[in-house]
Formats: sequence, C-alpha cells, structure tokens
Amino acid sequence: MTPYSPITGDIRKQIVEGLGAERIVSDPGRLKDYEEDASGLRYAPELVVEAESVAHIQTLLALANRYRFPVIPRGGGTGLAGGCLAASGGVILSLAGMNQIRSIDPANLLAEVEPGVITATFREKVREKRLFYPPDPAGMDKSTLGGNAATNAGGPACVKYGTTRDYVLGLEVVLPDGNLIRTGVKTRKGVVGYDLTHLIVGSEGTLGVITALYLKLIPSPQDVACLAAVFKDLRTGLSAVSEIMGRGHLPSAVEFMDPKCLALVGDLLPFRIPGENATLLIIETDGIREQIAKEIEAIGNVCLEIGATHLLPAPDRESRARIWDVRRQVSLRIHESTPIYMAEDIVVPISRIASLVDALPAFEKAYDLRIYAFGHAGDGNIHLNFTAAAREDAERMLKGVVEVFKLVIEMEGTISGEHGIGEAKKQFLPMELPRESIRIQKAIKEAFDPNLILNPGKIFI
Amino acid sequence: MTPYSPITGDIRKQIVEGLGAERIVSDPGRLKDYEEDASGLRYAPELVVEAESVAHIQTLLALANRYRFPVIPRGGGTGLAGGCLAASGGVILSLAGMNQIRSIDPANLLAEVEPGVITATFREKVREKRLFYPPDPAGMDKSTLGGNAATNAGGPACVKYGTTRDYVLGLEVVLPDGNLIRTGVKTRKGVVGYDLTHLIVGSEGTLGVITALYLKLIPSPQDVACLAAVFKDLRTGLSAVSEIMGRGHLPSAVEFMDPKCLALVGDLLPFRIPGENATLLIIETDGIREQIAKEIEAIGNVCLEIGATHLLPAPDRESRARIWDVRRQVSLRIHESTPIYMAEDIVVPISRIASLVDALPAFEKAYDLRIYAFGHAGDGNIHLNFTAAAREDAERMLKGVVEVFKLVIEMEGTISGEHGIGEAKKQFLPMELPRESIRIQKAIKEAFDPNLILNPGKIFI
Repeated sequence: MTPYSPITGDIRKQIVEGLGAERIVSDPGRLKDYEEDASGLRYAPELVVEAESVAHIQTLLALANRYRFPVIPRGGGTGLAGGCLAASGGVILSLAGMNQIRSIDPANLLAEVEPGVITATFREKVREKRLFYPPDPAGMDKSTLGGNAATNAGGPACVKYGTTRDYVLGLEVVLPDGNLIRTGVKTRKGVVGYDLTHLIVGSEGTLGVITALYLKLIPSPQDVACLAAVFKDLRTGLSAVSEIMGRGHLPSAVEFMDPKCLALVGDLLPFRIPGENATLLIIETDGIREQIAKEIEAIGNVCLEIGATHLLPAPDRESRARIWDVRRQVSLRIHESTPIYMAEDIVVPISRIASLVDALPAFEKAYDLRIYAFGHAGDGNIHLNFTAAAREDAERMLKGVVEVFKLVIEMEGTISGEHGIGEAKKQFLPMELPRESIRIQKAIKEAFDPNLILNPGKIFI
Repeated sequence: MTPYSPITGDIRKQIVEGLGAERIVSDPGRLKDYEEDASGLRYAPELVVEAESVAHIQTLLALANRYRFPVIPRGGGTGLAGGCLAASGGVILSLAGMNQIRSIDPANLLAEVEPGVITATFREKVREKRLFYPPDPAGMDKSTLGGNAATNAGGPACVKYGTTRDYVLGLEVVLPDGNLIRTGVKTRKGVVGYDLTHLIVGSEGTLGVITALYLKLIPSPQDVACLAAVFKDLRTGLSAVSEIMGRGHLPSAVEFMDPKCLALVGDLLPFRIPGENATLLIIETDGIREQIAKEIEAIGNVCLEIGATHLLPAPDRESRARIWDVRRQVSLRIHESTPIYMAEDIVVPISRIASLVDALPAFEKAYDLRIYAFGHAGDGNIHLNFTAAAREDAERMLKGVVEVFKLVIEMEGTISGEHGIGEAKKQFLPMELPRESIRIQKAIKEAFDPNLILNPGKIFI
C-alpha cells in the first residue's frame, strides 16, 4: 500500500474549501491541546479540524481516502492510552463541537445525543428528569459520550451497572468510506444482523466516526449511601468485599486503596491509620432511601465482623464528597510524588486481587520501582501506578510493567479493564491475544477501512 | 466462487475417518429431528455429525473448506428462525453432546461451560450455589447455552436483567478456517482489542462454532413475588406498566396479553373476564424477601389506582406456577386453534405498544387474518402470532406480516427482539437495515469465512 501522504498545501486547501476556514484550528495555544491526552504521550498533528456536521466528516474522509492521510477522531482528549493522538501524523477530527442532546425520552428510557456531549453534563440533565445514566469514568467532567463509547469507558459504578457498552443501544456512524449508517436499535432489545454497535463500541475510533448515540437510561435511584472502612491489612479488607457480595449485597461502588496509597492520603482522614499495612475500602449503595440506609448499616456490620478497625459513615452529600475526595487525591499525590509514572489498569478475578497486590513488592525490589495499587475491588479492576526515582528509569519501569502483565495474564486477568490499548499499550497486545485473534481483528479493520485511513496504527502493531 | 459440493461418498468417507463412525447420526428417527427447529421450516441435511471435541469440529471444517460444503452448527434446535437448518444442504454439526459444566466459581461469579449445556439445567446448578444466571428464553428446558449465545436469546427477565449478550464475558470459538481462539475475558471488565465476543453473540452460527462460554453470574435473589392484574382494556393495562416503571420499580418480568389471547385462556382464571376488551398483566419482582413483599403490594396498588378490575396475587410457588401456566398456554392454544401461523417477535418503543396493538384490527381485516399479541410489555418486545383459516392463506398472511413490519419500523422499532433472522426472516432484513450496513456485515462475514462454508445463506440473502 502507498505510504501516507503528508498534509500538503493542496490537501489543506481542499479541506478548507470543503469544510470552511472556520473549522480549521490555527490558534497555537489551542493546537497544543490537541497534541496530548491523559496518557503522557505527545504527538503534534499536521492539522486539526472541528467538525459540526456529518457532511464535514464525510468530506474529510473522502479526501483522506483520495490522498491517503490519517484521520484521528477525538472527543474530550481525556483518554489514558493515546487513542486520540496523531501518532502517524494526519488530521485530528474533533467531535467536541457536535454536542447537542437531541432528546431525552422518559417514557421509553432512552436518549439520543451527539458525540461531543460532556458525560457529566448528560448525567446531570437526565437526573433532572429522575433518570440515571450510570457510566461514571473518572474524567467525566471533561470526557465526551462519543469518546466514552469509543473506549468503552468504565468507572466505579461498573460493579453494579456495567460499562458504557451496556448503555449504548445504537449508533449513527460515518464509516471510513464515508457512508453514514445506523447500527442497533432505539428499543431495549434487537437481534437483526450482526451487532455492529458493540463491535464499534471499544474500537477506539478505528472502525468509524460516531456521530450520534442512542443511550439506554434507567430510573434514577432515590438516594445513595456511603461509608469508608479501614482494615489492618489488605487481605482482611478484600475478604470483607467477598463477604459483602457473598451475602447478596450489590453495592454501586466498591473501591479500595493499598497501604502505600493510604499512607499518601492518610492526613485527610479524621483518625490515625492503624499501622503501615492498613488499607481502605469505600462502599456505596443506591436505591430506595429506607432500604439503602439499612443496607449500608448491614455492610458496615460485615466490615466490623471481618475486622475493620474504623468505620467512617457518610450519611450526607458533604461527608460523601469528602470520602470521594480522599480517593481522588490518591492519583494526584502519586503524580506529584514522582518525576515519572505509568498508569495501568489491569483486571484480575476478584479472588486474585490480594495475591496480585501481595506479589508487587518483589517486582518493586527487582526493578527498583514503587507500585501503587487502588481501584475497583468489586470487579477486580486495579489501577497500578508505576513510579520511579528519575525520568531515566523509564526503560527499567517498562520491564517491570511487562513482568506484572505476565503475572496478570497467568492469573486469567486482562491488561486493560477500561482505558483501552490505543497507542500506549499496543506493544503489549500480543501478550494477551493469540495471533489468530489479532489476525481476524485486522481483517475486520480492513473490511471497514481498506485504505487504513481512520486512526491507523492504533490497537494493533 | 465454485458452488457447494454435495456430500459425496468420498467426502462422507473422509468425515467418518476423521471423526469416527460413532459420531455420524444414521438412525432415521433421530435424523428426522435434525430436519426442523421451532420455525415450522423443514430441510433435510445431507449428513449429521455429533461433535464431542474441538478436534472433531476442526477436522470437519478443514474438509468443508477443502471441498466447499456447508456446515451448520446446532444446539437444542429450539430456534424460531430456522438458523440451525440445512437450507443450503451440507452437514449439521450438533454441539449438544459437548455439555459439560466445566466450573462454577462463586468467588468470582463466573462459570465456564460447554455449548451443549441445557439452559434450565445450568440455571438450576448455579441456583444450588445461591447464584443466578438470568436469561430465561421460553424454550430453556431444551435450548442450549451455545444456541442462546448464537441467537442472543431473551426472555421475560430481560426487562430487569438484559439478554444473553449481557452474561457472556468470553468465548472459545473455532473460526471457519479451523483456528481455535479465545475471545473476551474471564473477568468482569476488559477492553483489549475489538469486542469479538459480542460480535459472535447473535451472529447465529455464521462467524464461528462456539466450543466454550465464560458466563457472568450474579448473586441469587432471595425470593420472587408475582401478581396478575386484569384491566378493562389494553391501553389501561399498558398505562399501568408506564406508571409502575415511572415510579422507579424495576420488575423482573412484565408480561401482557391482548384481549384475543386472554379470551383463549380466560377459563384458566378464577374469575370471569370483564368484557371482550379485557387485558392481562403478569408482574414479578425479585430480591430480598421483605422488600419484594412490600414492592409487589405497591405495584398492586398502582394497578388498582390505574383501574385494574381484578388482582390475582401469587404469594407462593404453586400459585406463581399457575399464573405462568396461563401465559404458556397462550402459545399452545393459538397453535391448536389454527392450521397455519407465523410467530413474529417485533419490538417497539414501550410508549408505542398500545398504538401498535390498536392498529392490528385494520391489518386483520385487510388480509383476513387473526393477529394475537402478547409478550414482554416491560421492554416493548411483542410476540405477534399471525394465523389464518387455511394453509392456502400463507401468501396473504406474508403480505400482512410485511405491512405490520413496515409500521413497526416507522415506529422506530425492530423486526426481531430475540428470535433472530436465520432463514425465516432474511427476506425482511433489507426493510430494517440500510444497504451500507448489510454491505459491511457481509464484508465481516467474508473476513471470517472466505469460503462461506459456515451456516451460509443465513441472515443475509
């Protein structure tokens, strides 16, 4: 296949003619924003366009196919895997401006939105109608619904409610060849042809440009109850998680942080941490007010029974916000504490979390690293933040990451629970996926995008 | 492409040599079973093999690719769309004998099963461990988990719990080229490469042969509460459904039957039906015992408030079984009442159910048919049973079906909620899917199966 063309003066001129000069970003400050996401990677695109219509996207893709240059769809730029970066050059296609909520339909528990709608804004708008859109990725104040679908974003609520995939009923998508299709249904069910919707969800912008989403909503839970619990060590804390879920409780969040994380944020708690091995759980339940008040009490009792040293109930909005701030501060303080870090988000079966975390000190020693573990104990999705003393340690750190990934795969886990592969992790893909699986996935990519112009080089090497 | 080869004596000999003579079905009575499913269609296969291992499947597919003959995977044969029939000739590949439950893992809420495990058996086995596998297709006493995944089977519990798709975390699949791959994860989350799992779920045996499934389980609800409610007419009954769900209740089943259905089974109820327009709802909730007792009472009160003429509570297992028997008798009595029928399973947005059912008499009159409507009011999935006076009316009936499908699509609905397309509905696929969507789906099929040997001719014309 011919190599990618640079964006020549002539191509640029045709893009300007086709889309309008006002669609091209030229302000240097704003251009800088498009060089990065939350992965730490950085690539300067050759051109950035901000689409406002399907026609803009189709015009751009027609030119990309004619001259063969990469087009990289982008939402809020909050991704952690570099999926929206111009790693092979080409044109960044921002969808952030297509941000209308077309409809919220309480009778049918359905919404139709454009891809640039901010996740948190949407959650707020549906809440006003006493409805609920559960996916709550950490970056939701900036992330877009289109980007969430492209990466199948998760969040703490997954343990009860599932990931973005579970709320996308259908899509409007511009295929790489420029054709606009609708996938899926506007109803709760449907089995008509292949499930293109769920193939495109999580495909990280490589199979099509999402121009609208039909989202499933559910009735809003009346209220939320929250508590934090401290345990003398991680195994005890995690056995409380098993016990809580084993008794039939299904919390709407079950977060944990390991002793290293807790030591970083212990000053935010209203009591002294009981020793250097102490670990913290944050548990929420949602539903009908009286029921969840009883349920969180029962969960608190299980924690005490298993050996919690401190319980911190959060009966109101303010105390709940304070607990979640402790959780949020973990990432920030890890990043402040180190000149270099890699944020991984592996998943292991719930019963293996403790074994995995117990195994980390050996890797820390062998590769001279610090590895912080926190995240979603309820579904086994652990954020591992690898840090080292100096920027020069990057190569050694990477070796440590690879060894930890090997252990995760041995434990029947996966190397990414919610961040995706994008650019940052594609070198590791063959560790998890067999050759034949990658082959068939590449064949699907070629069926959608014979000229390989849409977000090329992502996911697969 | 060369046409399909018949199963010549030589091919048959090679299959016998490769798989063993004991894997070939030759008993005429048993062969008859493989000619049909629950669609009413009938095609005699050239050969039937019952696989017991991945190697049997790989050997058969290698021969199919070499000589180009169709291979049609089959589970319990309970499908309603003819998806497992040998409509283009070739070899039926029965997976019913691969029926081991490899593991049920309560700690990780996960099971690993072979495709031939009977759905109801599996549900019972996990219940013994206080776990729950929600999908409950009507044919579950005979259907297999592999077949359920291939057709993305639904059932009454979908309204609360989703379809089979939502419980398949990963698959082991023999691709049409004979390669065995694993897709997805054994964990609750994962975004590593394209979502092949959910592409294969619902693909009706056209993209691969499922040889194992990793299924998500949830904690078993403690108990179930049930009631039936009769309303003077359908609109009143359906407005009760909206009101129940609008108040934040999420029942585990919300079934309805229209006046024609109710008239067929009214003798099974312990009271007289209030008039010829009367309609019936069956509602269940599941969860913690005390909570659902209160909830079903609240739901009953909503029904009375909206205008239910009779409530029939079902506080125990026996009375619950009696109510569900009324529901089950509907299909049986429809089929007994007519020499010819077509069972469709359209979906419309919940708010349009009443309008759709109201529109049916005009179609009945125009095409001289009777159309019975019943099914899943909670998610808009309506079983429409078309019947006529004589076998010769088939062509006219088909015209009526097409006109109703047009209305369903106008209402932003879909022509199949849970039965799939298979052989029976492929002529209607272009009514719902745009040309470009079908084109990309066929391209996916060719990427998986370049010789088009696996269940060819299904879904797409």
